[in-house]
Amino acid sequence: MIYFDNSATTFIKPKEVLSAVLQGLTKYSANPGRSGHKLSMLCANKIEEIREKVKEYLNADNVVFTENCTDALNLAILGTKLQNGHVILTSNDHNASARPIFEMSKRYDISVSVATPKNRGILTVDDIIPHVKQNTYLICVNHMSNVDGEIADIEKIGQFCYDKNITFLVDGAQSAGHLVLDMKKQHIDMLSLAPHKGLYSPQGVGVLAFSNNVKLEPIRYGGTGTEGENVFQPKGTIESYESGTLPTPNIIGLESGLEFVKSHFDDINSKLDDLSTYLNYELSQIPGVKVYTHPNNAYGVIGFNIKDFGSTEVSQILSDKYDICVRGGLHCAGLKHKFLGTLEQGVVRASLSFFNTFSECEKFVRAVKQISKM
Amino acid sequence: MIYFDNSATTFIKPKEVLSAVLQGLTKYSANPGRSGHKLSMLCANKIEEIREKVKEYLNADNVVFTENCTDALNLAILGTKLQNGHVILTSNDHNASARPIFEMSKRYDISVSVATPKNRGILTVDDIIPHVKQNTYLICVNHMSNVDGEIADIEKIGQFCYDKNITFLVDGAQSAGHLVLDMKKQHIDMLSLAPHKGLYSPQGVGVLAFSNNVKLEPIRYGGTGTEGENVFQPKGTIESYESGTLPTPNIIGLESGLEFVKSHFDDINSKLDDLSTYLNYELSQIPGVKVYTHPNNAYGVIGFNIKDFGSTEVSQILSDKYDICVRGGLHCAGLKHKFLGTLEQGVVRASLSFFNTFSECEKFVRAVKQISKM
Repeated sequence: MIYFDNSATTFIKPKEVLSAVLQGLTKYSANPGRSGHKLSMLCANKIEEIREKVKEYLNADNVVFTENCTDALNLAILGTKLQNGHVILTSNDHNASARPIFEMSKRYDISVSVATPKNRGILTVDDIIPHVKQNTYLICVNHMSNVDGEIADIEKIGQFCYDKNITFLVDGAQSAGHLVLDMKKQHIDMLSLAPHKGLYSPQGVGVLAFSNNVKLEPIRYGGTGTEGENVFQPKGTIESYESGTLPTPNIIGLESGLEFVKSHFDDINSKLDDLSTYLNYELSQIPGVKVYTHPNNAYGVIGFNIKDFGSTEVSQILSDKYDICVRGGLHCAGLKHKFLGTLEQGVVRASLSFFNTFSECEKFVRAVKQISKM
Repeated sequence: MIYFDNSATTFIKPKEVLSAVLQGLTKYSANPGRSGHKLSMLCANKIEEIREKVKEYLNADNVVFTENCTDALNLAILGTKLQNGHVILTSNDHNASARPIFEMSKRYDISVSVATPKNRGILTVDDIIPHVKQNTYLICVNHMSNVDGEIADIEKIGQFCYDKNITFLVDGAQSAGHLVLDMKKQHIDMLSLAPHKGLYSPQGVGVLAFSNNVKLEPIRYGGTGTEGENVFQPKGTIESYESGTLPTPNIIGLESGLEFVKSHFDDINSKLDDLSTYLNYELSQIPGVKVYTHPNNAYGVIGFNIKDFGSTEVSQILSDKYDICVRGGLHCAGLKHKFLGTLEQGVVRASLSFFNTFSECEKFVRAVKQISKM
């Protein structure tokens, strides 16, 4: 079996991550932040230690643990709470940011613009600027498209947002683990992560990092382990965004996933560079195959189609006949497909991880060749 | 070390649960519902199989997996979306329901009443009825108090809600695994669970079950694996409430926890009955100790205080000097402490699980005796 659906979730987790989750279910199995006894404190201290590590990794002021990246983006978008103004997002953005933004636009006096890249392969600040209005308060940019790996020049966009005093939200779901994220240097105000993807962590935890200058309101209300007598949600503390019991084992798994990525960062990404370059070139040589991913894109995400074959059908053949797992369809990213003109056909996406091999890529290319002759 | 903080989270998980989570990180480690390939389908089918089991266990029409019980209660309360009317909750209710309700009351034209029990040990429909108004649309009842184990007669309250056409929300955070839950028989419209407590499941998954007659709006927006081209949240499907990647390993752990509880239900609860009865009696014999839990309460939650000693201080002594983990303070349940008159002192809570022993209870009683002589 060949698993090329790592942009949905990395299938193979490092053994250190499995051990860490088990530790989270045994050694750290009390409720962090809910009691003063030593086991609860052990858990609480461990969570805070991991929070500090994530902050350090992102150069972030604040880190909130959420259910998943979507939850993080909802907190970022609904929590900024402005009820009028203008928001810009990009054609690379996932429904995880598009849907909360468009839902807000329905409820409040908020207008939305979608920026598209002039040049394939990178979305630049020049693609954003024409959309900026006097009342633009939020620019939301997917750092790396989950459909074809297209990246955004977040450093320049961040500088622009900083200069114009516009809140800059980056969706790092696909980029974390592959591209450098430095919130201060890149002037990112809010940053969401999907650790179960490129950070090789378990499903069941997300991250929203945000800078001190962001005023964020909680969007979920409940027990925080603080101000128990107050029937209203406390404000201004990290706990106020983390009501209810945290997913402790997953957060402990996240620590190991992050350590794994930190200590293998160059290996992971040079391997993905090699495999991406190979796949991109080989696929684009097959008559009838159209590759959407830019030839220089090195992050292991290859979006393509075969002739006018439905992408879902191609994926099904790859699964049924070749035992290869890829994803077809729209990948919850309608704006991207509108831009690519693939709303009908969708895109076949092969997405790799550190644990894929060159030989798997060869087999995959052979399979696509055979299908293209059907 | 003696762990008596199982109402916060059951510390010891059955070995089957640990194995299940590991399976969730290896065998079922694709993304359920996000692709059509066989690994994703394997995960999706597994999740649906577990969803059916939870539905069957609760006699529920619908089951949504959430981050935690608080998340489930937020969906129930904010998702019913009425923007005016009257809500009743009870003095047993946790901040996980109180805070979303009071936050709504601040934002919309919603008034709130808090019902309190006339007779200690059980909150009855007669405690609710005097608070009902013409515009009461939601009655929210904590099935079992997390402070002293006090239960609510949800069958009669459910019948009343059914007759009056009022939506009935039950917080089963503490009761699941101990008391029978049957949504149809008990006329429960919405029911929240905290599986990491009495269902011996991992932290990082909650449940909201709801009946077909409830009209629930999603409160989180994002990818659903459906209608990818739609930038607005799809409505009316279970996926519409589960945006983003599900916590698959935790849901798979939940299946094992639920199986464990189903196959040991009588053993668990007769053991807890024995230990509770012993603890309640022995503690209430100690001069200066006030036990808040009703003598007949058999569910392993004993709330008490020693003289006018701060509950947090007593818990600290138990942890530091006797290696016993209990929780002091307000337990995120201010309404309860207002009712008990313990907002200042808090309550010391010993909460047991199936894995506690009689000998631990004896040691605990001896420790409380010694502290009471300080």
